[in-house]
Amino acid sequence: MDDILIRNVLLYGMKVNVLIKNHRFSSLNAPADAPAQKVIEADGMALLPPFYNTHTHAAMSLLRGYADDMPLQKWLTGYIWPFEEKLTPADIREGSRLAVREMIKSGTVFFSDMYFDIEETIDIVREYGMRAAIGVTFMESHNKSQQADKLDMLRHWVDPTGGRVTLTVAPHAIYTVGPDLLVRCAGTARELGLKLHIHLSETRKEVDDCLHEHGTTPVRYLDKLGVLGDNVIVAHAVHVDEEEAAILAERGVTISHCPCSNEKLASGTFHYKMLRQAGCRITLGTDGDSSNNNLDMREEMKFAALIAKGASGDPQTMPAHEALDMATRNGAEAFGIDAGVIEEGKLADAILVRLDDERMQPLHHLISNWVYAADSHIVDTVICDGRIILEHREFPQS
Amino acid sequence: MDDILIRNVLLYGMKVNVLIKNHRFSSLNAPADAPAQKVIEADGMALLPPFYNTHTHAAMSLLRGYADDMPLQKWLTGYIWPFEEKLTPADIREGSRLAVREMIKSGTVFFSDMYFDIEETIDIVREYGMRAAIGVTFMESHNKSQQADKLDMLRHWVDPTGGRVTLTVAPHAIYTVGPDLLVRCAGTARELGLKLHIHLSETRKEVDDCLHEHGTTPVRYLDKLGVLGDNVIVAHAVHVDEEEAAILAERGVTISHCPCSNEKLASGTFHYKMLRQAGCRITLGTDGDSSNNNLDMREEMKFAALIAKGASGDPQTMPAHEALDMATRNGAEAFGIDAGVIEEGKLADAILVRLDDERMQPLHHLISNWVYAADSHIVDTVICDGRIILEHREFPQS
Repeated sequence: MDDILIRNVLLYGMKVNVLIKNHRFSSLNAPADAPAQKVIEADGMALLPPFYNTHTHAAMSLLRGYADDMPLQKWLTGYIWPFEEKLTPADIREGSRLAVREMIKSGTVFFSDMYFDIEETIDIVREYGMRAAIGVTFMESHNKSQQADKLDMLRHWVDPTGGRVTLTVAPHAIYTVGPDLLVRCAGTARELGLKLHIHLSETRKEVDDCLHEHGTTPVRYLDKLGVLGDNVIVAHAVHVDEEEAAILAERGVTISHCPCSNEKLASGTFHYKMLRQAGCRITLGTDGDSSNNNLDMREEMKFAALIAKGASGDPQTMPAHEALDMATRNGAEAFGIDAGVIEEGKLADAILVRLDDERMQPLHHLISNWVYAADSHIVDTVICDGRIILEHREFPQS
Repeated sequence: MDDILIRNVLLYGMKVNVLIKNHRFSSLNAPADAPAQKVIEADGMALLPPFYNTHTHAAMSLLRGYADDMPLQKWLTGYIWPFEEKLTPADIREGSRLAVREMIKSGTVFFSDMYFDIEETIDIVREYGMRAAIGVTFMESHNKSQQADKLDMLRHWVDPTGGRVTLTVAPHAIYTVGPDLLVRCAGTARELGLKLHIHLSETRKEVDDCLHEHGTTPVRYLDKLGVLGDNVIVAHAVHVDEEEAAILAERGVTISHCPCSNEKLASGTFHYKMLRQAGCRITLGTDGDSSNNNLDMREEMKFAALIAKGASGDPQTMPAHEALDMATRNGAEAFGIDAGVIEEGKLADAILVRLDDERMQPLHHLISNWVYAADSHIVDTVICDGRIILEHREFPQS
């Protein structure tokens, strides 16, 4: 691992030299002539934390624009599922590559994924130097999912990246996984010290079906099963009431809020203000390319902030710095990654953004410009785990 | 005016050669060796209509990120107005330049503006080769606004661009311009064949104040004054009921929908589905950089479509092609510009977008990718009125 010196970069309002050693930020105020194998001249750029995307289906990049603007059931049964049936491992590999390239080029270093043929996705993550939490998906109604093999795989898996990839136990949802398997998933996750990643309370229909089948709402149902804990990440959580918000907060559950997907599929509008007031940890996810249709966390921050203001009727809801925290440190924290904020001693994950773009001018407020005004093409360089994975918008050795 | 041949460009699903002559599309299927002074090799690019931004305050680019995430009154009186008080014509010139560069680089060829020191903005529009409708603002409570001079100016103005710029009569709003002046503005606009551009029904407070002062709602009030007609463009129209929607449709009024601004200021959520069903002509605007915080019509299209789906609870609301029409042909049509759609005989306004960007792949559906997935950095070249005003993301002769 080479040392990196980032020279003359804007950080917290000052021009400094930042030194990275042994995967970590070693100094945020190094001398300009500090020895380092690699020097980045960053005059005219700012150093910012990168994105941690907490809910994706990476290989669904292959379905970008394949079907839009239609009712959920028609979309799923008429288009998405038939397309997915035909996907080979080689397809998943190319879809993962497209998604990983898209993510890195928009400033993302980590994603929490849920899909099939995960070996392909993991290999692409390894190749491109990202971090990921890759879900081992459980879905009883799906023929690509053999549950017993998977529990076994979880026990014996070895991370081929030496620390950047973890597996998660990923029961798809309460309507595709029965109570027994949900309980086994939760037990396995706890036993192996893994995160559990599940879709929850995404649509009104899910809530109504849960009420009908289990006599209670999705959050209460999972809580009664003993599934909820501080290792659990629930995607969506659109349809939750105040008592459910309190349960999620009490159990230390992380919410992956996916505003673009929720609005595009008309799933409902997230109760950001209520969930935050309840004390929930809220992170940001893009969901898959098929329902967004990109993996751009910069755009997702802006949409999240604007929708939260609109929905609450209060322009003070989710100020820019809060949207940035959701997309960065909250996500890292939820997955136990000692990063997401630029501090000495933290793992060196960061992006360099160009300030000469018209949309970053004038520079009254860097974070406001980044969240509300920029687009992610101003990401010039991406550093993950102390290594450059994108430099001047090019992939190294590619 | 040079002829332009665009070679091997993707248009309506086919690779064609497009010839531009005398400001207009002369052929959409020209021979590859058609004589032209300028040839653009556009293999790997698609030709799309550019954007017509129907509501801006261009020079407010100077206030980008200056104040965010606060209540409207504090924002206006504590930050925006005091800042604006200090702006000189030279400031307005630089703010207009920043906005015009930002707009062209994101694929916009036209904007309908409302601000001060309009000579500066017009000169920048002339320099950069855009189109614009520049509002002569009337605001009785504002000391930068001398009404009599302005009515005179409207009569005697000569377009320095030879056809790309028009003036509009722009009474700021019903709460800053009294009924007498509103009626005079409307009369002058009709007499001179000009458009009238006004903020309308933006906030709940505006409606409540109007009810209190005039005993009726804003749309009904303007209609009773005889202001509404097919030359009128109203910005926002957030708080309108079904009868008001019918009035707007009946009078042929154009609505400039500004979703990012409405959500960011928590003004309320636009009733897209209802207004469209009423038969209103709906166009898209970004509003100023101070309340958005960019002028990116690509992002505005996506945001408009997602909010409309979320608000209506129906994912079929505002499909991608409808969002594109709002941002392109509807805007051109509202301002009487014979452009906004790529057809032989139409004025040659167009953009070339790069298809090699990850977010444009796979290319199941070009319009879906452009509206939902891309960002505006894939705009490579911009043509306005048959002239190249951005080439490979550089301004000509700059």
